Amino acid sequence: MPGIEKLPIEETLEDSPQTRSLLGVFEEDAAAISNYSSQLYQAMQRICDAQNELSAATHLTSKLLKEYDKQRFPLGGDDEVMSSTLQQFAKVIDELSSCHAVLSTQLADAMMFPITQFKERDLKEILTLKEVFQIASDDHDMAINRYSRLSKKRDNDRMRAETVEDVYTSRKKQHQTMMHYFCSLNTLQYKKKIALLEPLLGYMQAQISFFKLGSENLTQQWEDFLGTIGTSVQKNRNLLKHSLDGNVV
Amino acid sequence: MPGIEKLPIEETLEDSPQTRSLLGVFEEDAAAISNYSSQLYQAMQRICDAQNELSAATHLTSKLLKEYDKQRFPLGGDDEVMSSTLQQFAKVIDELSSCHAVLSTQLADAMMFPITQFKERDLKEILTLKEVFQIASDDHDMAINRYSRLSKKRDNDRMRAETVEDVYTSRKKQHQTMMHYFCSLNTLQYKKKIALLEPLLGYMQAQISFFKLGSENLTQQWEDFLGTIGTSVQKNRNLLKHSLDGNVV
Repeated sequence: MPGIEKLPIEETLEDSPQTRSLLGVFEEDAAAISNYSSQLYQAMQRICDAQNELSAATHLTSKLLKEYDKQRFPLGGDDEVMSSTLQQFAKVIDELSSCHAVLSTQLADAMMFPITQFKERDLKEILTLKEVFQIASDDHDMAINRYSRLSKKRDNDRMRAETVEDVYTSRKKQHQTMMHYFCSLNTLQYKKKIALLEPLLGYMQAQISFFKLGSENLTQQWEDFLGTIGTSVQKNRNLLKHSLDGNVV
Repeated sequence: MPGIEKLPIEETLEDSPQTRSLLGVFEEDAAAISNYSSQLYQAMQRICDAQNELSAATHLTSKLLKEYDKQRFPLGGDDEVMSSTLQQFAKVIDELSSCHAVLSTQLADAMMFPITQFKERDLKEILTLKEVFQIASDDHDMAINRYSRLSKKRDNDRMRAETVEDVYTSRKKQHQTMMHYFCSLNTLQYKKKIALLEPLLGYMQAQISFFKLGSENLTQQWEDFLGTIGTSVQKNRNLLKHSLDGNVV
């Protein structure tokens, strides 16, 4: 694949210093990806939390307006107009809070889900394989060590056979885990782009749907409604002015 | 004014039990308005806070994407395409965060400002006048009390004259503060409607501007951009699949 480097899986059996050095570069890259995507994850989580809070606060405001009728105002003479106006406000703000709730859900599904999967599954897998590979390498080193001391002391045949078996088993284990680890690091080089782009795409698509929903379904009926209310508020202002003039005794 | 009840300012001089009883009803109504508008104030403050946080989190996300170039990824072979894609994402998300910032400002000016004014100025004024009126009433009661005791004891003329003067001054003070208090309670009956409707109007108009700004200026160019990115992600997916096939050794 042009441009994308790969750890050579065919070199895992030989396990040369060059291969180990290349592994170090891939591990450093994986750590940098992990660090960067964690920061992005946190920022996206903040967006989600704020969006959820906005959704809840909008819903609460609509709920309060709906409850206006249940308030006990001793002077509620001409409350019918006011009450029906607030019910209309409650209705449109409720619609808006539904749009917010849809946006919240879409952000959770299309933005948080993929970046969480990448963080919790793909990046954790690399860490786990790194540990498993480290343990297998240590086991192999110990087996080699026992074998080298054994040959000097000229122990009995049964023990020598056991130690040789150990070296063979642990080298096989180390080879297998190394291949697995290399595969995972190679795959990460492809996944990292999708891991960054996918949640951003999800974010943008959710925002576009939100704006469409808001502007197509809501804006027009809101403007008609607000025209009416604006006139009503102006009337109240005039009443207030009139009342203030009347209050001058 | 039809439908809106008024405290009779012309009755403040007589200060009859009927007037006091009517005052009690207006005070109860003022307390109910104060309680309801406080709840609405809190819900609106929550909306503002969430909107500010959303604005900040969106801005942070855009900033992180801009900083992608400054990250040290040891394996950055074909990063140029990725880098320019993320810069484009950063740009559109930054534009969105500007829209959010405009919305935040409009909510602060057109929603929070009027409801805060109502809470901090109009409702506080009522409470202050209630206190001032209470003090003036107490002073008047004390003066009357002194006067009634005086007449029985047949004190000297200078003291009698002083006490009569006291009764006159304190009654004048009480009458003035009562008129002021009544005016304020009457005005509240007009203001209460504007106080509830104005911030709601401000909220709705801010939301409409936001949807207009979002759908007119952003949505079209975003969709074109997302079309390109979508294809690029699909290509990466194919590369990943190819790489996974290649990894099977």
